[in-house]
Amino acid sequence: MSYLDTILQSRRDTRHFTKDAVPDAVIEKALQAGHLAPSVGLTDATRYYLIQSDAVKKAVKELFIDYDRKAAGQTDNPQQKEQYQNLKLEAIEEAPVGLVICYDRSVLNNFTIGTVGSNESIKFSAVCAAQNIWLSLTEQGYSMGWVSILNYFDFKKLLGLPEHIEPLGYFCIGKPASDYDNQPMLQQLNWKQKAAKPSVAVIDGISESNSLEQDLISQDTTSKETKIKETLQYKIDHKTKPTGSLGVLETLAKQIGVLFQTTEPHISQPNIVVFAADHGIAQHGVSAYPQDVTRQMVTNFLEGGAAINVFCKQNGIRLSIVDAGVNYDFPPNAKLISAKTDKGTQSFLSGPAMSKSQLGFCFAKGTQIVAGIAKTGSNCVGFGEMGIGNTSTASVLMSVLCGFPIEDCVGKGTGVNDEKLQFKREILRKAINDYKGGDDLDSKLAYFGGFEIIQMAAGMLEAHHNQMLILIDGFIATVAYLIAFMKNPDLKNNAVFSHCSAEQAHQKLLDYLGAKAILQLDLRLGEGTGCAVVFPIIQSALVFLNEMASFESAGVSNK
Amino acid sequence: MSYLDTILQSRRDTRHFTKDAVPDAVIEKALQAGHLAPSVGLTDATRYYLIQSDAVKKAVKELFIDYDRKAAGQTDNPQQKEQYQNLKLEAIEEAPVGLVICYDRSVLNNFTIGTVGSNESIKFSAVCAAQNIWLSLTEQGYSMGWVSILNYFDFKKLLGLPEHIEPLGYFCIGKPASDYDNQPMLQQLNWKQKAAKPSVAVIDGISESNSLEQDLISQDTTSKETKIKETLQYKIDHKTKPTGSLGVLETLAKQIGVLFQTTEPHISQPNIVVFAADHGIAQHGVSAYPQDVTRQMVTNFLEGGAAINVFCKQNGIRLSIVDAGVNYDFPPNAKLISAKTDKGTQSFLSGPAMSKSQLGFCFAKGTQIVAGIAKTGSNCVGFGEMGIGNTSTASVLMSVLCGFPIEDCVGKGTGVNDEKLQFKREILRKAINDYKGGDDLDSKLAYFGGFEIIQMAAGMLEAHHNQMLILIDGFIATVAYLIAFMKNPDLKNNAVFSHCSAEQAHQKLLDYLGAKAILQLDLRLGEGTGCAVVFPIIQSALVFLNEMASFESAGVSNK
Repeated sequence: MSYLDTILQSRRDTRHFTKDAVPDAVIEKALQAGHLAPSVGLTDATRYYLIQSDAVKKAVKELFIDYDRKAAGQTDNPQQKEQYQNLKLEAIEEAPVGLVICYDRSVLNNFTIGTVGSNESIKFSAVCAAQNIWLSLTEQGYSMGWVSILNYFDFKKLLGLPEHIEPLGYFCIGKPASDYDNQPMLQQLNWKQKAAKPSVAVIDGISESNSLEQDLISQDTTSKETKIKETLQYKIDHKTKPTGSLGVLETLAKQIGVLFQTTEPHISQPNIVVFAADHGIAQHGVSAYPQDVTRQMVTNFLEGGAAINVFCKQNGIRLSIVDAGVNYDFPPNAKLISAKTDKGTQSFLSGPAMSKSQLGFCFAKGTQIVAGIAKTGSNCVGFGEMGIGNTSTASVLMSVLCGFPIEDCVGKGTGVNDEKLQFKREILRKAINDYKGGDDLDSKLAYFGGFEIIQMAAGMLEAHHNQMLILIDGFIATVAYLIAFMKNPDLKNNAVFSHCSAEQAHQKLLDYLGAKAILQLDLRLGEGTGCAVVFPIIQSALVFLNEMASFESAGVSNK
Repeated sequence: MSYLDTILQSRRDTRHFTKDAVPDAVIEKALQAGHLAPSVGLTDATRYYLIQSDAVKKAVKELFIDYDRKAAGQTDNPQQKEQYQNLKLEAIEEAPVGLVICYDRSVLNNFTIGTVGSNESIKFSAVCAAQNIWLSLTEQGYSMGWVSILNYFDFKKLLGLPEHIEPLGYFCIGKPASDYDNQPMLQQLNWKQKAAKPSVAVIDGISESNSLEQDLISQDTTSKETKIKETLQYKIDHKTKPTGSLGVLETLAKQIGVLFQTTEPHISQPNIVVFAADHGIAQHGVSAYPQDVTRQMVTNFLEGGAAINVFCKQNGIRLSIVDAGVNYDFPPNAKLISAKTDKGTQSFLSGPAMSKSQLGFCFAKGTQIVAGIAKTGSNCVGFGEMGIGNTSTASVLMSVLCGFPIEDCVGKGTGVNDEKLQFKREILRKAINDYKGGDDLDSKLAYFGGFEIIQMAAGMLEAHHNQMLILIDGFIATVAYLIAFMKNPDLKNNAVFSHCSAEQAHQKLLDYLGAKAILQLDLRLGEGTGCAVVFPIIQSALVFLNEMASFESAGVSNK
């Protein structure tokens, strides 16, 4: 066994420390070891924060306790829960030194080698540094414990870290009070057995990629419609009310009756689908929010805390959440539909956002998801989205597909100031001017698209195929509709435009499509919230058609 | 310098290898070193794939070339671009061994210690293993190069990796052909200079978190109302959504919270009251419908067949029907509240519509009815009406009370044609010109009023007195509001204007009142239908305020 092997083997994730102080020289040497770790593109983006203050440690400990309780609640097995609760998983207050290892993602604002495939390489450099520090401390007779059971949002806030500094966790440093029998503590306590050997496999050939063919069957709806239209109009006009006095509700009732081919239309199993994905363009600072918010909001959807959750609950609408391509690995979750195309698109400032095969994947996935919803017996599906940077994507698509100058297609997005708006317009204009791809729709979609937008468009086409009522949310969903509409203009018979958002380009796009939105509530949240909020209005259209008395049945004079 | 330090310092991200083969024992020892890296929750989720096939290497190299070209396109600086293109950033085909280090995120399917704060800990364990392997190879006289300039989607597809296996990159392994002058290659080539020292800062105190909520409670200089306003605004702004993105719903939530003096407002026992009465002016043919329709519609309300019935039923709203003065003797009916002032007003073409004592009766009855509703525990009352000819009454009142010419105040009512409209305008103008009564409000109200309109106005004042939320329906209810508002302008804090009707004068009156309606659905039915249809939207405002997660509770970045 080599000297290094001995260090590697005796390095322990340590939760028991003596009270001995850690000399400054030890920390310095360890941090120097961290500094010797790889740094992608020589970005030197790793940052260290030292903590010796008892007050800070106490506050961090409280964060730990909060999330440890949450973790314990994640198992239903009472024995496992008890065993878990007995584990010592941190030494935040006992360890004499606390270290917070972070990475500074603002280095991505400049050209950085090695981040085009995934900007995670920045954080991986910091992790390598952590491992070097661990080994150095081990060699010096000290040790470290990595605490990750924390609400990172609160943790950052507590430490006062700037928005662009992301912590890997809290690291406890001190002299180890135990060597845990020279094995991982969790193994010593029989929580789990570490595998005797690493998992290794040999790849000796290229995998045959499945070509994802999309099968978009366009259905011709003809005749028979005229008759149902007339019958519906008669029924509407003979309700106990002056002709036309229920305005938009009458138009809706007729549209839905014709769509469902019945004079007694009912909505069954309404379902809103929120497609989430990340956008390469977000790296260029077009949004007021960091990209990580996409992930955070998906988690919020899954936990029921977002606006769309409470509106769906209010109105009895089923909610489906789709990971169309968020830049994060979600743990498997029965509530999350995985349709991950990639960890976000590439920035279309320097090339296509996605490959043609990814575009095909998105069309296939969106189709599949809505087909699945149709199979549950649903005849009404709403489309919403989440994706930091996706107003930029939507604006560019609108400009490229409708031929409008980009100025007319760009709004402030959510929470962008004037200066940023100007910047946003300029880089989007540049992206459009630089486009040298094909003039066909799919080439443009691959170059400028977003995973969630394409999946929505595919889903709408599938909803049309299944004769479903389609609720369109805001600006971005309307851009998805535009794409779907270009592939099948009959889609308009299925679509209800929930609201006209505060995003200026939305009204322009609705006008272009000859569409009229139901609500004008200055909403600009996305997530499908417009669909959820408008839903009772649509139900009002159906209850008047189905439940109101006619002049004849109520004995009321029709003039 | 310790032995470990020497290894740490000589570890290089290597892009130049000799042709020497790498003995299996070297790889095995290195992978064993990787296996000694920390593994969060002892998940053993790190996976290794070895590649020696030239065909696979060639395919991976092609992926690299594609993305390297893309990376080069990300700089506009021609010098930087040239320098970048000259860098050797991989050795995929030259290095004798290729290694793909991955993590298996399916371990998250089971309860896993240390992933509640962030499941990234799984991938961090794999990165620690990568660093261990790097160090072990260095100690053994070999080296490694981490290639991350790849489209990971295509990379996974190419290797045939299962969906749950995520690669960190492609690692080239071999005997180094250069030590790059014992410094990072990018530094040796003057691409960038590595910082001499790591970036370290000390955190010695807890960051002051936003304590507005506490501040607000401790301030005693501000009035109670300002405090609740600010606390509500804080609560609204800290929901997981961009500031202001729920538009009108936010305004509503704040208004209702301030009105109910709570940050958790709830509507209880919502109740719509439809006041029905007949109008002497109807005898002159101003309406498209015979006066008897008022009676017929009241019967329809009582039997549950009218639009207001089905909308109230849809949205869980209690409905009260008031006979304020219909020209018919209804048989006693438990469902009909009798507040009959007379069998319709007199025509104001030839004298006052009602006496001063009838006016007083109407004020008393309206007050009494709403006081009764408040006593049932209701905190939300909607006002609707039914009365053939009452748009004429309302138009005249608007003209007389606001000073607008009658032309601006007359609409078609329900189902009136152009000719009738012209006639209507003329006789109403004549009635106003002929007025010789007092200039005080009550004189005008008695002369031109309608029983249902005055009872509504009185009811609104009583609702204000009981701190209730008041839902105003269409044009006629807004005229009742105008009367109540002239008696108590504080009423505006209680009022929500359900919709702007298709009656042209309605928008003008709303503008005059500085009021903004929630819905624009071209409704012009009356009966309180606007109140009933808008009700779920108001509930949406409250559910978002009460049930949505905050940035803090959901761990979502607020910018």
